[in-house]
Amino acid sequence: MNTSHDHIVKSYDEELQRLTGEIIAMGEHSVRQLEAAMAALGQRDGDAARKVVDGDDALDACERRISHDVLRLLALRQPLARDLREVLAALRIAADIERIGDYAANVARRTLALNRSEPIPLAGGLAPQARMAARLVREAMQAYATQNAELAHAVRERDAELDALYVGLFRELLTYMMEDPRSITACTHLLFVAKNLERIGDHATNIAENVWFVVRGEALAQPRAKHDALSEQ
Amino acid sequence: MNTSHDHIVKSYDEELQRLTGEIIAMGEHSVRQLEAAMAALGQRDGDAARKVVDGDDALDACERRISHDVLRLLALRQPLARDLREVLAALRIAADIERIGDYAANVARRTLALNRSEPIPLAGGLAPQARMAARLVREAMQAYATQNAELAHAVRERDAELDALYVGLFRELLTYMMEDPRSITACTHLLFVAKNLERIGDHATNIAENVWFVVRGEALAQPRAKHDALSEQ
Repeated sequence: MNTSHDHIVKSYDEELQRLTGEIIAMGEHSVRQLEAAMAALGQRDGDAARKVVDGDDALDACERRISHDVLRLLALRQPLARDLREVLAALRIAADIERIGDYAANVARRTLALNRSEPIPLAGGLAPQARMAARLVREAMQAYATQNAELAHAVRERDAELDALYVGLFRELLTYMMEDPRSITACTHLLFVAKNLERIGDHATNIAENVWFVVRGEALAQPRAKHDALSEQ
Repeated sequence: MNTSHDHIVKSYDEELQRLTGEIIAMGEHSVRQLEAAMAALGQRDGDAARKVVDGDDALDACERRISHDVLRLLALRQPLARDLREVLAALRIAADIERIGDYAANVARRTLALNRSEPIPLAGGLAPQARMAARLVREAMQAYATQNAELAHAVRERDAELDALYVGLFRELLTYMMEDPRSITACTHLLFVAKNLERIGDHATNIAENVWFVVRGEALAQPRAKHDALSEQ
């Protein structure tokens, strides 16, 4: 028998599912923005870079819509326990994805700036770092979509590898600048691109920590050390 | 007559007030961290820098406590309308303050790195930018404490001045590096310090936008343009 209570419950699940679906789509869009920005950087393709910059508005709009949906869901449904955690995690994960999109757009803007100077061979060295960043975001979103706490935990662990790649690139870029001071402006842009990729990994970690929190009901223990040696870079 | 309903209402207000008080204290702590980090940078004071790095844990703990309080408040009180907006804004503002603290700690870590090389006169040029960043955070928190939407709006407008200071410093640092390639490592750290200060302004703006949202019930219209020319820096 389809009681009125059943009706409300079903409809709440549907709303939550819609919210989750929106966030998964938003996450995939942010990764595609990152990949398009890196492709534009590698090919010195200004048109492609501008497309990425313009594409960021869609992610911003998506976050605003999700915030609005969360507010409505909290007001109308007053979820509790795991439902409440899921709704709050949705809000936070959308904010992390929005930031990932900002970093992708910033890479695209720097591509436009870099195209004004001579190509730098080192730009290619950023590709593996970008691939790892994209992979971390995809895995964090996969953990979210499947509510997989173990995968979420693995994402946080793997972020340390991305940090290590960043430190290596940072040193290479500094050396390059010292050897050829004419490359300083361009290398500085690449330094910030590398930093953006490292930050994208941090946001993937945030997403993963939120997944853990939803599934387990508590924070992921022992926050990863803030790797003092690395974070000076 | 003190009915049971009055009792619940009063106690909810008390809880919200406690939450707001915690956030105001957290905001002030983050600004003091920033000021201490900049003082340590200016005086090349490693001990003071280490104190700032260590002090960041307290801010992280504060954010976790606030997230926990928000979850509890939502579950037990199920606030609506402006009350609900206030509680969600508390969550977001605490996250912004936590990031401001991270940037302050990063400045302190870079101070430790900078102390390993010769002093650079340009380090002093960061002081006005830092003062403006600190002022923006204080004003955003003042807008929060007094629920002043106009002040919140002014903070967002003034962030453009901080961005302009950043662009000027960025160019100065690049010129300095080109003139004296031995300064490249140190100047790179200062570039990132300048970027951190610029990002702190963005977080002050986020706080201000949340205050506007709580007071007015809608997003601050016309999001500030993403100043393409500047964000390439």
